Amino acid sequence: MSRKYLVVGGVAGGASAAARLRRHSEEDQVVIFEKGPHVSFSNCSLPYYLSGLVENSEELVMMNPEKFKKQYNIDVRTENEVLSIDRKSKSVTVKDLKTGKNYTETYDKLILSPGGKPIVPPIPGIENANCYTIRNVVDIVKLGDALKGAPKKVSVIGGGFIGIETVENLKEAGHSVTLVEAMPQILRILDEDMVQILHKEIYDHGVNLIVGDKVSAFDKSNVILESGRRVESDVVVLAIGVQPETDLAKGANLDLGKTGAMKVDQNFKTNDPDIYAVGDVIEVYSYLFNDYFKLPLAGPAQKQARGVADHINGMQIDNRGYIGSSILKVFDYNAASTGLTAGFIEHAKLGIDYDCVRIIPGDKVGLMPSSRALHFKLIYEIPTGRILGAQAIGKGNVDKRIDVIATVIKFNGTIHDLKDLELCYAPPFGTAKDVVNFAGYVAANILKGDFKHIHVNKVRSLQESGATIIDVREESEYEESHIIGAKNIPLSQLRDRIDEIPKNNPVYLHCRSGQRSYNAVLALQNLGFDNLFNVSGGFMGISFYEFYIDKITNRKPILTDYNFD
Amino acid sequence: MSRKYLVVGGVAGGASAAARLRRHSEEDQVVIFEKGPHVSFSNCSLPYYLSGLVENSEELVMMNPEKFKKQYNIDVRTENEVLSIDRKSKSVTVKDLKTGKNYTETYDKLILSPGGKPIVPPIPGIENANCYTIRNVVDIVKLGDALKGAPKKVSVIGGGFIGIETVENLKEAGHSVTLVEAMPQILRILDEDMVQILHKEIYDHGVNLIVGDKVSAFDKSNVILESGRRVESDVVVLAIGVQPETDLAKGANLDLGKTGAMKVDQNFKTNDPDIYAVGDVIEVYSYLFNDYFKLPLAGPAQKQARGVADHINGMQIDNRGYIGSSILKVFDYNAASTGLTAGFIEHAKLGIDYDCVRIIPGDKVGLMPSSRALHFKLIYEIPTGRILGAQAIGKGNVDKRIDVIATVIKFNGTIHDLKDLELCYAPPFGTAKDVVNFAGYVAANILKGDFKHIHVNKVRSLQESGATIIDVREESEYEESHIIGAKNIPLSQLRDRIDEIPKNNPVYLHCRSGQRSYNAVLALQNLGFDNLFNVSGGFMGISFYEFYIDKITNRKPILTDYNFD
Repeated sequence: MSRKYLVVGGVAGGASAAARLRRHSEEDQVVIFEKGPHVSFSNCSLPYYLSGLVENSEELVMMNPEKFKKQYNIDVRTENEVLSIDRKSKSVTVKDLKTGKNYTETYDKLILSPGGKPIVPPIPGIENANCYTIRNVVDIVKLGDALKGAPKKVSVIGGGFIGIETVENLKEAGHSVTLVEAMPQILRILDEDMVQILHKEIYDHGVNLIVGDKVSAFDKSNVILESGRRVESDVVVLAIGVQPETDLAKGANLDLGKTGAMKVDQNFKTNDPDIYAVGDVIEVYSYLFNDYFKLPLAGPAQKQARGVADHINGMQIDNRGYIGSSILKVFDYNAASTGLTAGFIEHAKLGIDYDCVRIIPGDKVGLMPSSRALHFKLIYEIPTGRILGAQAIGKGNVDKRIDVIATVIKFNGTIHDLKDLELCYAPPFGTAKDVVNFAGYVAANILKGDFKHIHVNKVRSLQESGATIIDVREESEYEESHIIGAKNIPLSQLRDRIDEIPKNNPVYLHCRSGQRSYNAVLALQNLGFDNLFNVSGGFMGISFYEFYIDKITNRKPILTDYNFD
Repeated sequence: MSRKYLVVGGVAGGASAAARLRRHSEEDQVVIFEKGPHVSFSNCSLPYYLSGLVENSEELVMMNPEKFKKQYNIDVRTENEVLSIDRKSKSVTVKDLKTGKNYTETYDKLILSPGGKPIVPPIPGIENANCYTIRNVVDIVKLGDALKGAPKKVSVIGGGFIGIETVENLKEAGHSVTLVEAMPQILRILDEDMVQILHKEIYDHGVNLIVGDKVSAFDKSNVILESGRRVESDVVVLAIGVQPETDLAKGANLDLGKTGAMKVDQNFKTNDPDIYAVGDVIEVYSYLFNDYFKLPLAGPAQKQARGVADHINGMQIDNRGYIGSSILKVFDYNAASTGLTAGFIEHAKLGIDYDCVRIIPGDKVGLMPSSRALHFKLIYEIPTGRILGAQAIGKGNVDKRIDVIATVIKFNGTIHDLKDLELCYAPPFGTAKDVVNFAGYVAANILKGDFKHIHVNKVRSLQESGATIIDVREESEYEESHIIGAKNIPLSQLRDRIDEIPKNNPVYLHCRSGQRSYNAVLALQNLGFDNLFNVSGGFMGISFYEFYIDKITNRKPILTDYNFD
């Protein structure tokens, strides 16, 4: 017997659900309602229209209603907005935005995939500002039109994915760009020590980067910040965040979770047995901290949609919870993250005991001309060594390392599993001992208690308090730039100069990336020293950490100069 | 109490073992013997010297004896060859190649890491040919010197890693290059259907590629093949393979395994409790087929070496067996492989029941200018769905997909695990449903019995026997190139033209990559057809498969033309 399925929303989740429903049956009727003029567009690619990387807005649209009809026999109704759900009669009221007329449509099963909408707070003066948000093709074309002609002064409010990708593409297009982020850092998928690399990159590309300052008002041509600062702006892009589009759900008394997103069960079913929901409108279960959170990403939306179509057709589905993996390009850098950050564990008070290691190996064999430093941070549970998360930033291939860690997390793997992985190696692609193996070794050494370490964010207070810091790099490296007050004992001279190292006080050793100082720490321990700490992340990590913070706070530098080789 | 460790061989395994031994103790004496003039060089990078990508041969050497002494207090003796082991007195006899004098050195523990040596078969006339092999920096400089001046005619014998990388770098340097491979295909880390892409790439770059023909003799200026073919050659590079350097072991009555490599236990210890061996000289245990095999790769050698240093120092080590992961660049393509190939399962008669899926999605969102087709093959066990191996070939990022599969294999994961992975996605890096997820979905559909498929290597016989082949691509695609005799029913017209599809005979459907034909197969099944097969790998896979085979065998083409878009 033919059944009738209605799908609200025609982007990642909705389109996937509909196509999968069709594959289960030729008879069933499948209708997608989309209030905008396009279905199945690449929302993640929208910012790339601003730089011209995507030349034509039509390229952003991957499928049209005609193709859906012809290839899948799916009835796609664009510019049709579902206004309400009548759960009793199992029907929806739809407004055809082209004719202005309302009509109703019944369903056997209803799938909600309305997505999330940009947050637009009621900031004083917002109605007079030339403000844009980015959600769909229409939005990005509108913004593109507003930017035509001579380069403009553009302020982007919000340093999340969309904000940062928009900043990059606006800058590439030649505009004068300010980025305003209320929190002390952009991109909370990255910890504060890691994100400074991107702060610097954005700064180095001539973007006026303002963090830790909030928009308090707009006037016709300025963004006014809480600090009193005024940023002249021809155009403002609001990229503060998205919120689940829950109006339909609320109107129909469907449950919301404590995050404010829709609550669904393990099969993505709402509290109404005939209504499912997927994508940015729902909250998902964390595999890592056993609670619900919002994960507005395209991949999970598509998987949930497929699962719903399968469940409707009697199949058992597999909901293992989510960890969250993401990546973005920020000018010449790539930055990726999976699982939990140290910052999230702290701020959300998860109460998980953890440690981190930070390493900065080359992403390829050093003699390959394309080899670049890879900043890698691994977060793991104490006492188990279970991997909780990882972050990678570099100019080369960061994604594969984070994808591998994401895979290990899904198998509940530990730092010991990382050591054992057999990853592809040839000089143009990596190193024989990959970053991931290397991080596993370092973490295992720490967990075993072979040596102690401290993180780059502690170095300033050590320097200021006059702690013993020993720089084991070669003299020429030390001369280029070093921590003020650090003593230089190159690893190559260490064994002849042990008398210069205090035996009772704590001693903090560092080199460029942490590897030579690790060898120094072990050598000294084997010679009877026992109050030694390696600086995880080394001088490179310290430089990046201090550089941008100095720039924005005008603090007294703790380095003689900056060195980012 | 100070102990004395001798290490034979100073490249990947030996250098790693020595450095790790030092980190365990400052007191112990550590000596490395290396018969060549260099230690710790990047043997995997040697071919890149030939094209000038590595400009200076000194760059290939990462550490020198002075640095080992200063940084690690390790005694490195280059041009010192260990001639024999006296197990009774626990000593070795060493020849100092600089002075010609022999001396002995005692040990508490001995670590053998002598590597593998290039195979040089006794082919008639080999003594008169201008033959080179590639093992170390001296070899590559010698070969480089022989190639100086005007471009040369160079024949490379052997299509393994070193052979192919050498061919590429010689071609980049402007030489006229012939590659001779005795087997019907190069690179046995790839199955025959996949490797044709690389055969074509090598052919397209103007290399004279000869497969399935063996060198029978040399004369002064020719390589003479079994087919009678003569290849004029100024220079010949022998890259037939490597064999474990087992002379020392044999001389000391240390056990060899059935592969001819040294036999070691789970701790990499030989049958002498004071002698360990690591790297290319040993055979390793397969995690996948439960037997020993040779795995001459740098990564495993380094890990084994570290393990040996730990075991000597009383630590428990973790030997989980090996799967083998590898990658190489072949002109504009990257090709990677992990685990078992279908070819190996067959030829080694492992008796494992398996199936494969082949998909060809884009490696990034299609509208990104750098998006390229990714040829992906997944091999999994029947009935369990356990992943056995995977291969990826493309112009973009193939390594991350194979690294993820390698990780899944190490956790004994299945095709269902692949569906669930949360991999990083943003348009410049991938697609929301990554290749790996996608392969998991397809494999799960096949294993569930949702549809049947056949592989590209079966298409010729189907075409020749007049089977019903339906091409569901659009008409314009069909016109460009198609299988001779295939009927074109575009997916977009399928539901209106079902009368044209025979109900009783088997019907084989294909599109460009396999995705539209999958939808067509399911639609037809839902309409009552039941003898349908999807062609895994689609028209792209068929084109690559047939193209090069046609070129070398002069078979009658089964395609109207070739289309590699």
